[in-house]
Amino acid sequence: MDYQARRQYLQEKLRRSKIDVLLVSGPENRRYLSGYTARDHGVGESSGALLIAARGTTHLLTDSRYELQARQETDLPVAVYRHGLHKLLERLLPEIGGNKLAFESHHTLHADSLRLSELAEKLQLSLTPVSGLIEKQREIKSEDEIELIRRSVQLNEAVFQQVFRSLATGMSEIDIALAIETAMRRAGADGPSFETIVASGENSARPHAVPTSRRVQLQEPITIDMGLVLAGYCSDMTRSFTLSTFDERFRVVHRLVRTAQQAGIAAIRPGATMKAVDRAARSVIEAAGYGRYFGHSLGHGVGLAVHEAPSLSARSRRQLKEGMIVTVEPGVYLPGWGGIRLENMIVVRRDGAEILNEDQTWLDL
Amino acid sequence: MDYQARRQYLQEKLRRSKIDVLLVSGPENRRYLSGYTARDHGVGESSGALLIAARGTTHLLTDSRYELQARQETDLPVAVYRHGLHKLLERLLPEIGGNKLAFESHHTLHADSLRLSELAEKLQLSLTPVSGLIEKQREIKSEDEIELIRRSVQLNEAVFQQVFRSLATGMSEIDIALAIETAMRRAGADGPSFETIVASGENSARPHAVPTSRRVQLQEPITIDMGLVLAGYCSDMTRSFTLSTFDERFRVVHRLVRTAQQAGIAAIRPGATMKAVDRAARSVIEAAGYGRYFGHSLGHGVGLAVHEAPSLSARSRRQLKEGMIVTVEPGVYLPGWGGIRLENMIVVRRDGAEILNEDQTWLDL
Repeated sequence: MDYQARRQYLQEKLRRSKIDVLLVSGPENRRYLSGYTARDHGVGESSGALLIAARGTTHLLTDSRYELQARQETDLPVAVYRHGLHKLLERLLPEIGGNKLAFESHHTLHADSLRLSELAEKLQLSLTPVSGLIEKQREIKSEDEIELIRRSVQLNEAVFQQVFRSLATGMSEIDIALAIETAMRRAGADGPSFETIVASGENSARPHAVPTSRRVQLQEPITIDMGLVLAGYCSDMTRSFTLSTFDERFRVVHRLVRTAQQAGIAAIRPGATMKAVDRAARSVIEAAGYGRYFGHSLGHGVGLAVHEAPSLSARSRRQLKEGMIVTVEPGVYLPGWGGIRLENMIVVRRDGAEILNEDQTWLDL
Repeated sequence: MDYQARRQYLQEKLRRSKIDVLLVSGPENRRYLSGYTARDHGVGESSGALLIAARGTTHLLTDSRYELQARQETDLPVAVYRHGLHKLLERLLPEIGGNKLAFESHHTLHADSLRLSELAEKLQLSLTPVSGLIEKQREIKSEDEIELIRRSVQLNEAVFQQVFRSLATGMSEIDIALAIETAMRRAGADGPSFETIVASGENSARPHAVPTSRRVQLQEPITIDMGLVLAGYCSDMTRSFTLSTFDERFRVVHRLVRTAQQAGIAAIRPGATMKAVDRAARSVIEAAGYGRYFGHSLGHGVGLAVHEAPSLSARSRRQLKEGMIVTVEPGVYLPGWGGIRLENMIVVRRDGAEILNEDQTWLDL
């Protein structure tokens, strides 16, 4: 990956916004711009930040725990803080110069923004929050990135198939989730891209169910929502099925969700608004009378983060662009019975949707 | 757990601070006060918040994905937002009444604090950030909590022993970490409390090393830092060892770190300052000439979060109190050679330290 080109693109944007220095604290943004792969333990425990001068050097700031890794993974100058990030900034910012300091509003805690405010006042800098600047840059994937994401999707499907073929009654949701996450790592993934969802029977009526000790049974709906990280890039896929036969309700709801998914995918093209794509899928479900059982957005971007911009939301007037990668994942959730969700990943191409998934498991009943 | 008593204690504190309503967004704080166990997918993707009136009801606010779980796990009134948290707050806050709204500065993104500001202005409320209010309450563990943490520590040690006995040359760091995390889940843990660290040879000179495909070898230092979550409560333990014999340097550094750990533990009692405990351990390492190779704090609190208050930091003048649980984990990291870190968990008792760990693996060479 050409990290320098990415930084140059961003620096150009900073100069147009009259920003002299940007503090990058979002871990995926940090990685996108530098190749530094350290993860954070929650937003309160950072493994570092980038300090990007609009007209100069980018520094990687971290603490002693990550110093070796930072030096090995990047060729940026590494500045180590022993008494916290803000003390180091107090020394570095005057060296870098400039009047206007920006920080990432969506990757900075309110508490840390207060400390930045104090620092800016002390150094007589103006301080400005920015939102989604680098996320917007990350929305459009290069062909190299699309290839890495495709490999992540392929590996995820291989793991799904391996576990799917071994499913049997008597296994608990936790057993299955564990088998999936173990297989991911054995297959060479960095790890799961989110906590694997295995939800059976009425548990599958919870879109974000956490696996329980409930044992899966014949004939009931089972939803598996899984993704992995490979070379930093995420995949995300959902399938709903049963372990044997299914009743009429399952067939009707499953076909409905699949039809909605296909309608959403068919609406994907450069220039389509997010809400129009959401509407294309949602109107299928609404027309069948299940609208109130589909409570979430249709999809989201996937890349270095498993949930990233753009959002295929009913409220977004933004437009799809060539090179974006989004999930299309309608669902119908019936309390007391269960749920069906089907999710594939799509690249927005000049002439429409390219579906990254090849897995056809139970897609068309 | 008596969630109502915990909320009453907090409400009393709110009233003393003239706060009418507190928005609780930290996931562990939310769980501590309600029993609602949903986790967040990063700070940007919340599974809900508590709205605590100083003189009234506590509402659990979430979206449709988590509604069922919220209703099952708590007896609080659940309010579901379909168009974002802030829209719901706009409706609920006037119903609850009061003039002063507080939010958690360390669990709120700067971007969300801006939206809260707009909302407060619209509703003519004063808005105030609070920091560490509930974390401070959580610092002091009840005997019930200590018992749960003890079980988490015991299970973690059982998993460590199981994997430790199976270690052999030819296994990669990733293999070992995977074996540990798989064993954790098979043993009934909710999962690891953080990404397991297995670092061998010179990799162990990185305190926060991520497991690599490097294969462990005889005679070199290996550090395993692992913890699990059981019934919501975390454990955290580190051992450094070799797979066979060791050289003089290993013996010297290992004994030094162990002596520093014992000095730290010996300094633990109610009333001791955090920095005094850190100093007790650090001065042992400094006196031996290794001070600059011990770059992190001596320890941290453990409970619902694996890293929580208090911090055994060289800069903290706060005092230990009875019922706190902290790690004591000095380390010495020599670039190019490797590192040694030893970590146990301690309960602060009236008469000193109670060590929760029973595992003695390689502690005293």
